[in-house]
Amino acid sequence: MTNLTARAHALLDRTLDDIPVTRAMQIRLQDYDDESLTLAAPLAPNVNDKGCAFGGSLASLATLAGWGLVALWVQAAGYDCEIYVQDSSISYLAPIWGELAARAELAEGESREAFLAALATRRRARLALVCRMPDESGADACVLEARFVAIVKKSAPAA
Amino acid sequence: MTNLTARAHALLDRTLDDIPVTRAMQIRLQDYDDESLTLAAPLAPNVNDKGCAFGGSLASLATLAGWGLVALWVQAAGYDCEIYVQDSSISYLAPIWGELAARAELAEGESREAFLAALATRRRARLALVCRMPDESGADACVLEARFVAIVKKSAPAA
Repeated sequence: MTNLTARAHALLDRTLDDIPVTRAMQIRLQDYDDESLTLAAPLAPNVNDKGCAFGGSLASLATLAGWGLVALWVQAAGYDCEIYVQDSSISYLAPIWGELAARAELAEGESREAFLAALATRRRARLALVCRMPDESGADACVLEARFVAIVKKSAPAA
Repeated sequence: MTNLTARAHALLDRTLDDIPVTRAMQIRLQDYDDESLTLAAPLAPNVNDKGCAFGGSLASLATLAGWGLVALWVQAAGYDCEIYVQDSSISYLAPIWGELAARAELAEGESREAFLAALATRRRARLALVCRMPDESGADACVLEARFVAIVKKSAPAA
């Protein structure tokens, strides 16, 4: 486990365990490499009546991956923030018949630096992320784009 | 219980019970009046780490309400269909601190008759629904718009 992944576990594991639905979904942190965060979950607790991944589970997993990536970025920048999802769009492109995984990263045209600069200036900033969920071949089976709002709770260390 | 609500229970209860996540969420059918379907769930199993409704639960509940309404409409028209959610957009407007409820109905500009006519002609049709989730004052706290695709599995009774 890298230091980055250990830091992600420290921040996210308790939150995931505090939400009954994410516990029922058996969501776990798979990878964090500073540019992206991947959450995963087994199929069995997330299956629908057709035997493939339940759409609600995919939406939840992807939204949480995005939320977690924002949480890790603001923490790394020294902020203690409330983070909310404001809105999102999801496309279900193909069924997923195996394990669920959602990889969150910056959406096209977005800047992590501009987001953190806005947070420093206005104590509140918005960031759009994209979360991709592959099928067994690795192709995108489900894609979510979401906008998150971070609001500083406590002052960051003086710049 | 009206006959319509009884018919909705007959169609939806087993499906809801077949999906582990919807069982964990304790989703139940609240009302069906032919124009709209309302699904509900208690807060406790759907709470997030902040004490209000988990966004993933809201997305799941609303998507299922839409799916169920399409299922009831195609069944009432005599079809046996596979029904999929194709894509959706959700706006989280305010936190929900009590019971979750999602009321699905036709989206603006959509026609149930045109949807059923397309299903009759092409054996496949698409329909957009809107699902509203109120806060305790009754105002929209969360709104989802979703497009569903229905594909006929078996022939309808000859017209």
